[in-house]
Formats: sequence, C-alpha cells, structure tokens
Amino acid sequence: MTGSSAAIDKPFVEIPISIRFGDTDPYGVVYFVSYFRYCHHGIEEFLRHVGLPPAAMFRNQDEKFGLPIVGASADFRRPIKYGEDIVLRVSILKMGQKSLTFGFRFHRPGSEDIVGEGQATMVAIGPDWLSRPLPERLQAAVGPFLTPSA
Amino acid sequence: MTGSSAAIDKPFVEIPISIRFGDTDPYGVVYFVSYFRYCHHGIEEFLRHVGLPPAAMFRNQDEKFGLPIVGASADFRRPIKYGEDIVLRVSILKMGQKSLTFGFRFHRPGSEDIVGEGQATMVAIGPDWLSRPLPERLQAAVGPFLTPSA
Amino acid sequence: MTGSSAAIDKPFVEIPISIRFGDTDPYGVVYFVSYFRYCHHGIEEFLRHVGLPPAAMFRNQDEKFGLPIVGASADFRRPIKYGEDIVLRVSILKMGQKSLTFGFRFHRPGSEDIVGEGQATMVAIGPDWLSRPLPERLQAAVGPFLTPSA
Amino acid sequence: MTGSSAAIDKPFVEIPISIRFGDTDPYGVVYFVSYFRYCHHGIEEFLRHVGLPPAAMFRNQDEKFGLPIVGASADFRRPIKYGEDIVLRVSILKMGQKSLTFGFRFHRPGSEDIVGEGQATMVAIGPDWLSRPLPERLQAAVGPFLTPSA
Repeated sequence: MTGSSAAIDKPFVEIPISIRFGDTDPYGVVYFVSYFRYCHHGIEEFLRHVGLPPAAMFRNQDEKFGLPIVGASADFRRPIKYGEDIVLRVSILKMGQKSLTFGFRFHRPGSEDIVGEGQATMVAIGPDWLSRPLPERLQAAVGPFLTPSA
Repeated sequence: MTGSSAAIDKPFVEIPISIRFGDTDPYGVVYFVSYFRYCHHGIEEFLRHVGLPPAAMFRNQDEKFGLPIVGASADFRRPIKYGEDIVLRVSILKMGQKSLTFGFRFHRPGSEDIVGEGQATMVAIGPDWLSRPLPERLQAAVGPFLTPSA
Repeated sequence: MTGSSAAIDKPFVEIPISIRFGDTDPYGVVYFVSYFRYCHHGIEEFLRHVGLPPAAMFRNQDEKFGLPIVGASADFRRPIKYGEDIVLRVSILKMGQKSLTFGFRFHRPGSEDIVGEGQATMVAIGPDWLSRPLPERLQAAVGPFLTPSA
Repeated sequence: MTGSSAAIDKPFVEIPISIRFGDTDPYGVVYFVSYFRYCHHGIEEFLRHVGLPPAAMFRNQDEKFGLPIVGASADFRRPIKYGEDIVLRVSILKMGQKSLTFGFRFHRPGSEDIVGEGQATMVAIGPDWLSRPLPERLQAAVGPFLTPSA
C-alpha cells in the first residue's frame, strides 16, 4: 500500500474508541489524560491503516529513525461518561520536512458534533536524537490525508 | 491557610516526580501521555500545598461546584528515561472570573534546564455543567502564585 | 439474548488484545500490570458478548447492585513485546450464589500456546456494600460458559 | 548499605500511597488494577530503601540479569475512595535461589486494619531469558526483611 497518489475516501481515518474502566476520573467522566492516550491509539491505528506497522515506525533501528512526540494539545468540550461510545477521526494537519502534525476529533458515533479535539506533532530523529527528514514511505503514505486546515 | 495576601517564597510549587515502571514507552523514554498525568499530580500537590484538599476541589457537592480540565497542552524538549529524576514546578499562568490556567515546567533536579513544559485550564462549573465563578477560597489561595508571564 | 440454555460454540469468548504504546515496561515487554487491565477489558467484552452492557453491570443503581472485583491473580509465562499480537480467552471458572470467577488465558493468535493466564473474582453487593445474590440475568447469561475446570 | 546481617526495625518497608485522579473506577473507588501498580511502586521503593536503585535491578545489562515479575495476586477487602490515604507495607515472603516473592499489605494510615493485600514473584533471568541465581547483593539486601509467614 503506497498511498502516495491514491485517491482516498475521506481525509481522515475513523476509529472507534472503547472507553474502558480505569479511563475515567472519580466521577465517571473520561479523564483528560485518557484522551491523550486515545490520540496515540489513533496514531497507531492511522499508521496501520496506511500500511505502516506502528512498532516499525516509532523506532526503527534498521532504518535508523525514531518518531517521538514533541508536543501535544487538546480541548475538551463535552463530558463523556463511562458507558458512552465515541469515535476518533485522525487526520494530518501539517507535514514538514522533518515533522508531522496529526489532528484529532472526537465525536459521538454518527454525529458531527465534536466532543473534543487535539493535535500532536512528531519529529523524525536519528540514533543521535538529532532531527532528520521524515522517512519517505511515511511521507508518501500520509500525504493523501493532509487536510488544508479545519 | 488563606494565602490571599501572604508573601510566598517562590511563584511556584515544586514537586518531585517519581518516574515509575509503566510510565515509559517501549524504549524506556517517558511516554508523552505520562507527562499529562504528572501535570495533574502537580495540580493535586499544588492544591494541597495551598491548603485545599484536591478531592474537595475537583468536585464539591456541598458547595455545588466542579473544576473540570477543559484544555491542556505540553511540549517535550528532552527525552527522560526510566531511572532519571525530574521535578515539576507548578505556577498559575492566568486567573479569570471562571477559569484558572496552571503552568508546568519539568526540570532535572537542581537544574534550570527545562526538559518539558505545559499548561492546563480548568473552569468552574455548577451541577448543571454551566460555568460559574471560581470558588473564592480557590481564588484567594492561588492568587499569590499568579506569574505575570514566563 | 438470554444465553440461559443456549448452546454455545466454545466455552470462552475470545477477544483480540491490542498492545498499546504505554502498556510496556521500559524494555518494551508488556508490563504485568497491563495484563490485569486486559483482563478487565476481557470482562467488559465478555459481558457485551452475552448481551449485558458493562456500564449497567458494574454498578446498577436502579437494580441496586454492584459487582466489584475482590481478588485477582495472574501468571506470566512468556514475555510479549510491543508490536506483537495476543488474544485473550475469557471463561467462567466458578459461579457461586454471590460471586463469579472469570478465567483468562492469553495466547498468540492461532496458537494454543499460553503466554499468560489468570483469574478474577467479582461479588455482588447491594448499596450497603454487603454481599447479595448475583443478578439472575447475569447468572443466566454466563452459565453456558462455566467450564468444569481447566 | 549491605543489609546482610543488619538488624532492622521492622520486617517491612512502609510507603505512603497517594491515590491519584485516574486511579479509580467510574464510581470513585480505587480500581483493582491500580493496586497492582501500587505494588510495583512498593517494590521500587523497597529496593531504594535497601540501597538498590530500581532501574539498575529490573534490568542490568552490565551484570547480565533481569528480574521480571512472573506472577502476582491480590485481594481487595475494603473499597478505598479518591481522597482517602493508604499506606503500603512491603515485605519478603519467600526467597529462593532464583526467585523472590514480595508481600504487600495496604492499610489506612495508623491502622492495622488491612484494606487489601497481595504478593508478586520475580525471577532472575539472564540475557537469554533463562533463569539464573538471584544477584548476591539483592539476596543480601532483602534477607533481613524475610518474614517467616503472615
């Protein structure tokens, strides 16, 4: 799966989020920290969706790169409780030479109403932890999901 | 402890962060999600430090308020590994009528070198989840830690 | 879905476990604590599979019962790393008047080779936290999965 | 600190447990999985207490050993809520040639009343993941905490 010039259905990958016991605050509302975990799950599923195994992307010793998260932010608009379902839409907000910014939108299933949203930026580094260009197959695979803005 | 007009030593509360097994990514580096948990620990310790029991502040049924986090962000500058120690400085970046923004700076102990930083905003709400003024004793207690900017 | 006297295919419910970033120890091996989380996910999926919404089972204010976990144990036979896949088989090891013991077996997909196994016991309690009989629809639904032993 | 023949005050190391936001179930009661995390924190603090840096014990590449957890169990006797304090007493239940079993007892501070208890066993392995004798300095350091039984 190259993805490079492929037409895609939608400029995002949508994944269901199962809110688990242990994901909430003491009042049954999803803890803000859990959303950041969901965002990383979103990145993992996004990569899988475009044919890139996450474990070979976050650190790849053969190809001498790593992709650490260097920044993340999120806003939480509506409280979600244990027992509710949400879906997460993952898109690409920005792709630089050496960095990639994922966008996240949390919805109730079948609704366009956003309950939370965020973003996270990863940079490509070499074994010396210095920045380097993004791996080409990553650029090719995520390119079609680059959304002008939102 | 009123704190309202009290002189304080430093415009932040510093707490040690113990990096635990389970806080890292598969490569031994602190997972970005863990920093957000540390930030919330920081808020809990900050509140305790100014004489406010966290469990009575995040949701207080008698006084009819809650203080959910509505937004958070962080940047991660240096990788920290399991076995390393860090300290967290918690300050107040902004205090509005109805909201409060905490600032977070992660340092190596005894160093001014910042390894990560972030912020989180909580709003005061009533039992109807509508915003309301911050509880007065919270305003009074955190006021002295308000830092013009950073 | 009553399940009460229904024939079932297999005396367990099998669910895929996605090993997430953040589930491992600093050396990339699944942290033993994560297995207990997976076990609880297993209970949630098991309940869903037999037609019982987890959020209405762990605490049900209308029907005045809760189902807290009162004990859990697990043994870990093989190290599993981030990037590997495992499946979890959930069965019922024991059903008493007031308690229910779930059994858990972790396998690599398509293999009978067990990489870890465990159990967890929940008891039915009333609003006073005193034990009470298991809800009847829970007994009926899980009965077919009761395995003599293993 | 050798610990080998040193007299010790008490046959356990007691550590305070800070119940954090995010440690509970949706009803505000400490989630059973969190206790297992607390147990591992207990091991980390126990090791630190006897002069052994945890990060150099769980995996030590120079001395060619690792100490994975191969089994754990716990019973939960009383519900503990967010806002309550507990302390954890860590002792050594068993020391074999190649394995070590830690015992855990959770109390309310200043009370002998046990709210939960458990155990966890670690084995010494070499780089090949085969079992090997426990490192001598570990045996010497933990020996004084070996309690006949409980």
